[in-house]
Amino acid sequence: MIHQIQNHRSIRKYKPDQIPAVILREILRAGMRASTTGNMQVYSMIVTTDTILRERLWEAHFRQDMVKMAPIHITFCADFNRFNQWCRLRNAEPGYDNFLSFFTGAIDALLASQNVCIEAENQGLGICYLGTATYNSDKIVDILELPNGVVPVAAIVMGYPDETTGLTDRLPLESVVHYEKYKEFTGEEIDSIYYERENSEQTKELLNTNNLDSLARIFTDKRYTKKDNEFFSEKFLEVIRKQGFLP
Amino acid sequence: MIHQIQNHRSIRKYKPDQIPAVILREILRAGMRASTTGNMQVYSMIVTTDTILRERLWEAHFRQDMVKMAPIHITFCADFNRFNQWCRLRNAEPGYDNFLSFFTGAIDALLASQNVCIEAENQGLGICYLGTATYNSDKIVDILELPNGVVPVAAIVMGYPDETTGLTDRLPLESVVHYEKYKEFTGEEIDSIYYERENSEQTKELLNTNNLDSLARIFTDKRYTKKDNEFFSEKFLEVIRKQGFLP
Repeated sequence: MIHQIQNHRSIRKYKPDQIPAVILREILRAGMRASTTGNMQVYSMIVTTDTILRERLWEAHFRQDMVKMAPIHITFCADFNRFNQWCRLRNAEPGYDNFLSFFTGAIDALLASQNVCIEAENQGLGICYLGTATYNSDKIVDILELPNGVVPVAAIVMGYPDETTGLTDRLPLESVVHYEKYKEFTGEEIDSIYYERENSEQTKELLNTNNLDSLARIFTDKRYTKKDNEFFSEKFLEVIRKQGFLP
Repeated sequence: MIHQIQNHRSIRKYKPDQIPAVILREILRAGMRASTTGNMQVYSMIVTTDTILRERLWEAHFRQDMVKMAPIHITFCADFNRFNQWCRLRNAEPGYDNFLSFFTGAIDALLASQNVCIEAENQGLGICYLGTATYNSDKIVDILELPNGVVPVAAIVMGYPDETTGLTDRLPLESVVHYEKYKEFTGEEIDSIYYERENSEQTKELLNTNNLDSLARIFTDKRYTKKDNEFFSEKFLEVIRKQGFLP
């Protein structure tokens, strides 16, 4: 397996060292080699290094320390703005103000982001995805001045790592792979899939600290609650609408 | 730059040769090493090799030849089904029947898909994304028997290449990268960005064949029309709703 894929770790502590322009450019070029629908390249990568802008992004990303620490912040957007402008300049009437087009742009953006991350690690850098790019997407639209046709779908921080971390555990391969068709799991299979994770020392500590009786409740009651998910769903749909992809 | 990233080509002609199980497993494991939100792994990869199922998928993907030719078809899905089942078995009430959760699963699925593609190329295979996974997602749900909580977001075909192709042209890096904040393009910049593509021999042939006067109109009038986009937007939103992610 490609070394960088096998050994990916999310890095949350960064040195202040700047990234040489030539290396950054190589990483961004790697993003551009990813597959893109019909070669339309309907995405953009917004590279933010300015301290004041990064401080505002840090607020939008729930004040996670790593956003301030890492010298580079990249926001990946579904982006039909440039494509629409090109169409209009050529007397072609763009028909991309709809959800399918938004999702097409999101796919382009996410495939490019993964190339960027793998190449960043190839260049000795660390990265971490910010799951929060879709949560406060309205704020990110404001901060980065995203025009109609542009919606943020992912963000990463990037820099030289200032920590060494172990590989994150994953469920067994059989929990995410289905052969031929989808196959529902039995209760016993679910028990088996989650056995190792539920019985780790890390989980025991987490349950003690949170005074909860199951790891699943750490997710449902603490980390990814129904209330938050519903609140941020509305906000995200509103941004998709405001940026012109939903009626 | 990592060789496989630099040299990616979409492959549309395949040899009938089967892919050894050990190689396929390594490729799928590469998918599982991609970043995933909160380590929830809310996605799935459905690997289809059965001829009859692949014929039905070929229909759903607008009968593109490569779907029949390639020995392996992988459908990447946003998937909260397994996670919800686990939560319920542990007396935790999942709150993932909303759009944000769908999109979270879609991000997981798409990052995994890109790892799978890069590792497939590392193993000497070729791949091609099927942009049509979201178009006839209702049919794919039927064919692969996807339960509530599961939505297809991307699909690829994979196999040993039976063609050699050149690298696809891309717009200049500056067309997809913005520094600090988003910067709108001037008309002159758009002209410059698209100059090479619009003036290539390939484009001239395409315009002659289609009797159109601009490359942009190939996209708006032929390949990605407003009418199709609106039709498939409704279908895709309906699938997202039916699978439990929209009210």
